[in-house]
Amino acid sequence: MALLLREVIGEVLRRARTSQGRTLREVSDSARVSLGYLSEVERGRKEASSELLGAICSALEVPLSRVLSDAGERMSRLERALDRTEVVSGAATNIDASTKVVIPSRPGIVMAVA
Amino acid sequence: MALLLREVIGEVLRRARTSQGRTLREVSDSARVSLGYLSEVERGRKEASSELLGAICSALEVPLSRVLSDAGERMSRLERALDRTEVVSGAATNIDASTKVVIPSRPGIVMAVA
Repeated sequence: MALLLREVIGEVLRRARTSQGRTLREVSDSARVSLGYLSEVERGRKEASSELLGAICSALEVPLSRVLSDAGERMSRLERALDRTEVVSGAATNIDASTKVVIPSRPGIVMAVA
Repeated sequence: MALLLREVIGEVLRRARTSQGRTLREVSDSARVSLGYLSEVERGRKEASSELLGAICSALEVPLSRVLSDAGERMSRLERALDRTEVVSGAATNIDASTKVVIPSRPGIVMAVA
């Protein structure tokens, strides 16, 4: 189980595109990548090479630094959520079985843990 | 000319490793990647898949979020430096690869402009 870079990058790219009200077709044309490939990248199913990622960022007019920072923040939130989940499930490797962990209810947080 | 993700990620990984005083051999063994491949990744010559990057981060005991945030900050500095360079040169799109660019000394900032 792991949080993958391509999944987080893909989500950041999709948010950037949709926040601009642009279609996959528009951005894929501008970045000179196939629509299908861009869609796969956004869904975290294909790795984007560094060159392709650069082209997509250019097409979106978003600096790569911003994409990385956004991805870092999002990954950090996911890591923290994952840590909590692992403590609850007992999957953490060094916690004694008798340890009690109480985690406050947080409405509105939905986690996908693969 | 472009700033590539793999170059920035590679540098962040190398800094993390050397700051821990660990060798390529130690980290490559722990991450189950060949020493040569890890070296290529650190030098920005090979793309690391998301899975491999995750394995390297685990071997370094550095969260991927931290690597991304560090890479974002570093990329941001490079982007700003590049902007200054392009304004100064006035010929951003036509700089030959062999052109040497001299940038005023700024203590603590080291740039590689390829």
